[in-house]
Amino acid sequence: MKAVVLASGGLDSTVAAAMARRDGYALYLLTIEYGQRHHVEIQKAREIAAWLEAGEHKILRFDLHAFGGSALVGSGDVPKNRSEHERETGIPSTYVPARNTVFLSLALAYAEVVDASCIFIGANVLDYSGYPDCRPEFLRAFERVARLGTKKGTHGNTVRIKAPLLLLSKTQIIQQGLALGVPFELTHSCYDPRGDGSACGQCDSCLIRLKGFEDAGLRDPVPYAARASDASSAP
Amino acid sequence: MKAVVLASGGLDSTVAAAMARRDGYALYLLTIEYGQRHHVEIQKAREIAAWLEAGEHKILRFDLHAFGGSALVGSGDVPKNRSEHERETGIPSTYVPARNTVFLSLALAYAEVVDASCIFIGANVLDYSGYPDCRPEFLRAFERVARLGTKKGTHGNTVRIKAPLLLLSKTQIIQQGLALGVPFELTHSCYDPRGDGSACGQCDSCLIRLKGFEDAGLRDPVPYAARASDASSAP
Repeated sequence: MKAVVLASGGLDSTVAAAMARRDGYALYLLTIEYGQRHHVEIQKAREIAAWLEAGEHKILRFDLHAFGGSALVGSGDVPKNRSEHERETGIPSTYVPARNTVFLSLALAYAEVVDASCIFIGANVLDYSGYPDCRPEFLRAFERVARLGTKKGTHGNTVRIKAPLLLLSKTQIIQQGLALGVPFELTHSCYDPRGDGSACGQCDSCLIRLKGFEDAGLRDPVPYAARASDASSAP
Repeated sequence: MKAVVLASGGLDSTVAAAMARRDGYALYLLTIEYGQRHHVEIQKAREIAAWLEAGEHKILRFDLHAFGGSALVGSGDVPKNRSEHERETGIPSTYVPARNTVFLSLALAYAEVVDASCIFIGANVLDYSGYPDCRPEFLRAFERVARLGTKKGTHGNTVRIKAPLLLLSKTQIIQQGLALGVPFELTHSCYDPRGDGSACGQCDSCLIRLKGFEDAGLRDPVPYAARASDASSAP
């Protein structure tokens, strides 16, 4: 029983991969490097793959940068220190055009080649910050595309899209990861890391992650260049 | 009114692009180079883009080869001189895993960035040689993914998938291209071209193309290394 897992090296996808392993799947990890800024994620993704004892780990590079259209792949500034309210309204500039559609389609190609029965994706609807392609109805629609658009599907073997974190809060995701022994120190979420790999502590992704650890009563083990809780304890 | 056109440099996608131009769209051509053998297509695609007066022409390289799984991207042999019956039964080894899903998702990302209202694809159901991702129901399912998975769609601007060749025979496609002045000599269909760029004349794609020209009462202007009609007139 094989599963392709979209593995960015981030917290969510690593917890999703650990859940897939717990469920008995042989893991085929797919890391897509699309010219985003956080290049450091790739190295962490390799270390995580080793921890997960993945059967295979493919790193696919392609230049989504060519299209522009996002602060994550373009030259726009990553928004910093936005309030929870700001984060929850509208689609942020870090939205990558059709990202999950592109990622799932590449995972589908991989799933078809290795004959995997499902694709795991760390999509999350509560913390999705307005990304349309993290919604359940989107994932169901993609499943239909997977069934109709592949040789596997034609032969009655549909590829299911599994998003086990879909309805969890960030705190619940962290608790789930804790229960499965996920090495949080290897996971990386920052949209705008420093040259030394430390997280900025101010982008949406850092703010959501830090709050998740705080609400879980844990300290995030990754290094931060600046951390709100550190700043508040400064003189 | 903008349209993204998936432009391989082949006969079908070029005729589809010419139809999009006739319908008044500003063309945004997307050529995807996925490690396939027929590298010569890329150069032809550039020349075709110039003929079409495209507003933009993006060439996106990525290594679908990494997954393997197809004679078109792997090391398997391209099947030669198959009969019409052989071509019409089953899915050929030149099938690229989830190809149109991958291509449409990349076109969707591009469409979202340039704010195009539709994507043109040269998919064809009659000559599709058993490729599941050329069927109308697949294209409709992808349209739903496009609506649900993009910022555009969220704002009520759906991206339509247009496949104007879907129900045409190869002969009808050629006649359509003839009416629009398509420079057939620049289009390239062979799965296994020679080093000098000439078409093999024996793969499924060449056989279908040659028969299409023959049935239209025309001679295909591209050079062939071997051509069935030449062979039959040999001593």
